[in-house]
Amino acid sequence: MNEVFSTPIEIRFAHCDPAGIVFYPRYFELINGVVEDWCGHALGMSFHEMHVVKDIGLPTVHIETDFVKTSVLGDRLTAQLRVLKLGRASVTVEIRMVGEKNDLRLRAELVLVMAHVRDRKAIALPEVLRTQMQRFVVVDAIS
Amino acid sequence: MNEVFSTPIEIRFAHCDPAGIVFYPRYFELINGVVEDWCGHALGMSFHEMHVVKDIGLPTVHIETDFVKTSVLGDRLTAQLRVLKLGRASVTVEIRMVGEKNDLRLRAELVLVMAHVRDRKAIALPEVLRTQMQRFVVVDAIS
Amino acid sequence: MNEVFSTPIEIRFAHCDPAGIVFYPRYFELINGVVEDWCGHALGMSFHEMHVVKDIGLPTVHIETDFVKTSVLGDRLTAQLRVLKLGRASVTVEIRMVGEKNDLRLRAELVLVMAHVRDRKAIALPEVLRTQMQRFVVVDAIS
Amino acid sequence: MNEVFSTPIEIRFAHCDPAGIVFYPRYFELINGVVEDWCGHALGMSFHEMHVVKDIGLPTVHIETDFVKTSVLGDRLTAQLRVLKLGRASVTVEIRMVGEKNDLRLRAELVLVMAHVRDRKAIALPEVLRTQMQRFVVVDAIS
Repeated sequence: MNEVFSTPIEIRFAHCDPAGIVFYPRYFELINGVVEDWCGHALGMSFHEMHVVKDIGLPTVHIETDFVKTSVLGDRLTAQLRVLKLGRASVTVEIRMVGEKNDLRLRAELVLVMAHVRDRKAIALPEVLRTQMQRFVVVDAIS
Repeated sequence: MNEVFSTPIEIRFAHCDPAGIVFYPRYFELINGVVEDWCGHALGMSFHEMHVVKDIGLPTVHIETDFVKTSVLGDRLTAQLRVLKLGRASVTVEIRMVGEKNDLRLRAELVLVMAHVRDRKAIALPEVLRTQMQRFVVVDAIS
Repeated sequence: MNEVFSTPIEIRFAHCDPAGIVFYPRYFELINGVVEDWCGHALGMSFHEMHVVKDIGLPTVHIETDFVKTSVLGDRLTAQLRVLKLGRASVTVEIRMVGEKNDLRLRAELVLVMAHVRDRKAIALPEVLRTQMQRFVVVDAIS
Repeated sequence: MNEVFSTPIEIRFAHCDPAGIVFYPRYFELINGVVEDWCGHALGMSFHEMHVVKDIGLPTVHIETDFVKTSVLGDRLTAQLRVLKLGRASVTVEIRMVGEKNDLRLRAELVLVMAHVRDRKAIALPEVLRTQMQRFVVVDAIS
């Protein structure tokens, strides 16, 4: 428990708006990419395996985000993911993005639900996935 | 007061993911477009006037969203914007997207802050904009 | 024959880059939207009907584009679509985007191929679609 | 001369459409990222330095692309960039994306022009950039 999944993020030209800062919908593409990397690189079940092989997915049903500090073209951020709550079919994760001086750029909290792609009904998280997710549970959050 | 700003939204191919539903970061592009249309069509100050002429902007500093029901390719939604809170430099808006049967697809709450583009410092909302925004204030929310 | 399909396009904040002009990959989203509107509004077969009902699609296999003049936030363009060549399974279209003074912003030429979504094999254009497409054939281009 | 700039590309969920393949406008975001990496990693002048420090940019004025084979979620591609023609203010590059078996997915040819961001006028390529670009010139293409 208490593990943190970290992955680097580079702010690219495609992410920035006419004000020269990240256009916030692009942050959500990046956030989705963090969840995608977490599943594929740390949990052992890639989005390809979920969507193409198993016909399941992990849609986001709730998200709240504080954009604490702007990021600009060329910034090198680190995204950090922790699990705040692990349910039967859902998992609540926190994602932080910080700059090179560990300065907080944004903090997001997402509720993800495991679901069948075809009928869009929630199902229990596969045990293999749930077991891996437990490594990232913040202990304070569940005690 | 109590006015609602409404604008139609069509779910396009570009918004949809391999599961055939709207990829949620695209919803935030659409939400940003609703704020853009509100400013340009209802408040009398377009994003062009803000960004290109006045060098000011209305960045989003906080957003929380419930994705209540999925939307698919071809869906015709209506976005509805109301003002929940009107501050000196910031405005809190609620955006709902509903389907043709008035079924709720998502509900978002955003805090927008008026800021100089160059130095990214918050400034008071221009009086002309603030006055127009008052038309959309939900009275129950402020009493 | 010789009809032109026209549709309005507004340059939004989401389309623009740190240089304040349209980021060119966004033009291709807009171009895809023009083809989508052409199918749904002029040819009588929406992308929803193709993808969700019939399991067919119209992927782009070749595209070439001249970006003649930049477009900025707030510009109101008109997109114009003509058919340059109509084959058995493919159609070559020209899309122009012009500004309010009819000044050319871009000219694109796309080859679209009708295909099954599942096995990604080309198939003949449905006759109902092909017949409608003929209205937009530039006569000079085929004689 | 004859160097090739290579960079890995992973096909993510955000790139894919309801047909489960890359939505072609996303390829152009990826192509733009290849040029961005080439400048920053191989030529010694990042987009940040161009846009934020020097107020210059490298807009695309012409692009043509053959989409040879579809790519799906999870595919690991390699992008390869070569210079076909090096002018005073412009550079023509070829970008190929290939799969793990070296199978061609797309081939694009882009004309990039060095320009001032503010007045959008073409200027000569900075000598330091031009010199580095020469390493990537395909010799056959200029003799």
